[in-house]
Amino acid sequence: MTSLALIEAAAARLQGHARRTPLLNAPLLDRIAGRRVFVKAECLQLTGSFKFRGGWSAVSALPPEIRAKGVVAYSSGNHALGVALAAAMHGVPSVIIMPADAPPVKIANTRAYGAEVVTYDRDTESREDIGTALSTERGLTLIKPYDEPQVIAGQGTCGLEIAEQAAAAGISEAPVLTCCGGGGLTAGIALALQARAPGLTVHPCEPEGFDDTARSLAAGQILRNARPSGSICDAIVTPEPGRITFPILQRLCGAGLVATDEEALRAMALAFTHLRIVLEPGGAIALAAALFHADALGSDTAICTASGGNVDPGLFRQALDRFA
Amino acid sequence: MTSLALIEAAAARLQGHARRTPLLNAPLLDRIAGRRVFVKAECLQLTGSFKFRGGWSAVSALPPEIRAKGVVAYSSGNHALGVALAAAMHGVPSVIIMPADAPPVKIANTRAYGAEVVTYDRDTESREDIGTALSTERGLTLIKPYDEPQVIAGQGTCGLEIAEQAAAAGISEAPVLTCCGGGGLTAGIALALQARAPGLTVHPCEPEGFDDTARSLAAGQILRNARPSGSICDAIVTPEPGRITFPILQRLCGAGLVATDEEALRAMALAFTHLRIVLEPGGAIALAAALFHADALGSDTAICTASGGNVDPGLFRQALDRFA
Repeated sequence: MTSLALIEAAAARLQGHARRTPLLNAPLLDRIAGRRVFVKAECLQLTGSFKFRGGWSAVSALPPEIRAKGVVAYSSGNHALGVALAAAMHGVPSVIIMPADAPPVKIANTRAYGAEVVTYDRDTESREDIGTALSTERGLTLIKPYDEPQVIAGQGTCGLEIAEQAAAAGISEAPVLTCCGGGGLTAGIALALQARAPGLTVHPCEPEGFDDTARSLAAGQILRNARPSGSICDAIVTPEPGRITFPILQRLCGAGLVATDEEALRAMALAFTHLRIVLEPGGAIALAAALFHADALGSDTAICTASGGNVDPGLFRQALDRFA
Repeated sequence: MTSLALIEAAAARLQGHARRTPLLNAPLLDRIAGRRVFVKAECLQLTGSFKFRGGWSAVSALPPEIRAKGVVAYSSGNHALGVALAAAMHGVPSVIIMPADAPPVKIANTRAYGAEVVTYDRDTESREDIGTALSTERGLTLIKPYDEPQVIAGQGTCGLEIAEQAAAAGISEAPVLTCCGGGGLTAGIALALQARAPGLTVHPCEPEGFDDTARSLAAGQILRNARPSGSICDAIVTPEPGRITFPILQRLCGAGLVATDEEALRAMALAFTHLRIVLEPGGAIALAAALFHADALGSDTAICTASGGNVDPGLFRQALDRFA
């Protein structure tokens, strides 16, 4: 199948299960940005992030007899929640491998969706090895967070919706800023827009110091981040672009944009005030880029993903205290 | 025109200007409620509340030569914002009469939408008198907050959407809990549902101590609240039900429900965690009723409006500190 056909098939499977999220805007936010800003509010997706799309797509694509044995995924957060709920809604077991120091609320909610959570020590154990072992021992299917075609196809359904919603708003040419970790959402949206809205060009957005994708795109080869962690944008900090996603980004995306952690907090506060949505830092980085770094793109309109809203209340309070 | 025809005409005028807000739900929220809970997220409407619907409906219904002279409204918050933006988008002037002690951010945002704000002293001046005087002197059309058929028709468009979205979710019978002040939203939704989804029965929800509508419905006549203020649910504290809205509520609504201010804060925290939307206390009272007081309704499903999200950051922090 072509990439578009995979995405369309995923959209058909998601129909009636995943949510069509709104494309929000606010006149007073436009004034701050100096341009029209449209926000694809994936924080309103089931489980609080776009990851439910990919999770549902992958679980629903499995042959029933394989799916019945269950699935396994490794993730510190949003992919865990998305796969756990998708598996539960299919009535099949899931095992989620999470770092022992993951936010307690994310571990608790993953369990609440019915998943078995296996914790590991980030410093001494390999989540990939644990995943492979569990997969072999128990006959579970491993669902990778981004380097997996059906996951990319699921995230691409967000791009189909952006294409339709942008057309309905009269937008045929604009940059589309995505929150980018391993590149699953960015690749999926880029593939969908190439087919359905070729005037919309995707620009991956990352936190300062963790701009592996922006640097890799500029260098024409995969480059790693210097550090494994250290940004509050935990949801989109990955060591390097994916092996499957990066060639797609290279072919279809414009230059990457970078925003600071502080700008992400500021974007969270502005989203609170003007859009009344709850964002986590990693889910606010594209909005931060649209608000504070989009002049270089030279467009009077920007579309951005608000990709997740699973944020610790204490961190959210910080954003309000400092910037609301 | 019949009431339904007025609402349908308003919907046609709102098309492409107001937002069709999503009907949200979350498995973990259902577990807390002990039933399925669907939330009509009007906090995602332009200006942050359903009031934009009524404002747009009323402004757009005026004959162009009357509209061109401008409009006037009195409101401490959401109606002010809704009318101000609707007037600005029509390119006509607006004057908004606001109490001098209204939240500064609401006054500032009303001005930011281009309105002229006239402040008055709640204790010594009458906003109705000021509105009438301005209307006469300047030829402005007064747009009342709820006792105005075109405003009720605008709020009723929210009911048309609930009817469609409930049907799409397979819900044909359920209580619909509304956040109720003067009764414009409640009356509009009740009229729309009577015509389009007669199995959905509206129950107005109010804060404890300010349950004039619930008591009036029970008594069969309009009763006033004992106090003019004193709830954090400022957006829905009115002295008594409206003269136009109350007979509609009497004819179409089930019994009113009451929740406490503390339960409203708790609902705000749960909406933050599970739906990732920002609610103000008055916009969370129906969700609070659905979560904590719906057992008496005997239904395994409840729909509620989340009618507004223009909340002071300090108050929102309180909800997070205490309940998130």
